[in-house]
Amino acid sequence: MPVSPAFAALPCPPYYAVIFSSLRTPQDRGYAAMADRMMELAERQPGFLGAESAGEDSGFGITVSYWQSLESIAAWKADAEHRHAQETGKRDWYAHYEIRIARVERAYAG
Amino acid sequence: MPVSPAFAALPCPPYYAVIFSSLRTPQDRGYAAMADRMMELAERQPGFLGAESAGEDSGFGITVSYWQSLESIAAWKADAEHRHAQETGKRDWYAHYEIRIARVERAYAG
Repeated sequence: MPVSPAFAALPCPPYYAVIFSSLRTPQDRGYAAMADRMMELAERQPGFLGAESAGEDSGFGITVSYWQSLESIAAWKADAEHRHAQETGKRDWYAHYEIRIARVERAYAG
Repeated sequence: MPVSPAFAALPCPPYYAVIFSSLRTPQDRGYAAMADRMMELAERQPGFLGAESAGEDSGFGITVSYWQSLESIAAWKADAEHRHAQETGKRDWYAHYEIRIARVERAYAG
C-alpha cells in the first residue's frame, strides 16, 4: 500500500523520539513561516530521521520528531536559529507545551 | 498557568509511550464510539498514566498513550475488547498506521 507522506519512513529501532505536544495561543505572528523554516532546518541536521505532526483547530497539536541519538537531539536544541524560535515560541505562540524525550525500542506498521 | 485537559499529567520519567500515528479511511462506521470506549477502557487498565491526541480533518492523527511499564502495554494490547477494536481498525478505520513503543527518559514543560 502506498504510504501517505504524513508518515515518517524510519529505520529499525532503536532511535529516539522528541514528543512535542502544544497548545497554541490565538495569535499567528509568523508562526506558520517559522514552523516551515524549522522543519527545513531540522531536515538538514545530522541524525534527523523524520517527523510526524497533527494539529487541531482548537490549537492543540502533537509533533513527534525522530533522531538517531540523544546527541543529535541536543545539537538541534542548541542550534542558534532554533533557539531563537524556541524563545519566541515560549513568549508568543504557545500557551503551554510538554516535551518528552524517549528511546524507541519497537515499531510496527499496519 | 492552568494547563489544558488536552495534556496528560504524568509522573517523572522513566515511563513508556505508545506513539500511534494513523491515517483514517473516509468511513466512520462506529469509529467515534469505539475511540471513546477505548479511552474509557484504557483509563481503567493497570499502569495507564495518560494520553494525548490530535487529529486533523485530513484524517491524519497522532495519539500518544503513556504507561508505567512494557508489561502494562502488553496487557492492554491483549485485552479482548481492545483486540476486537484493533481488528476492526485494521479492516475499516485505518488506511495506514504506525506504532512506536518508546521509553521516556526525560520530560519538561513550558
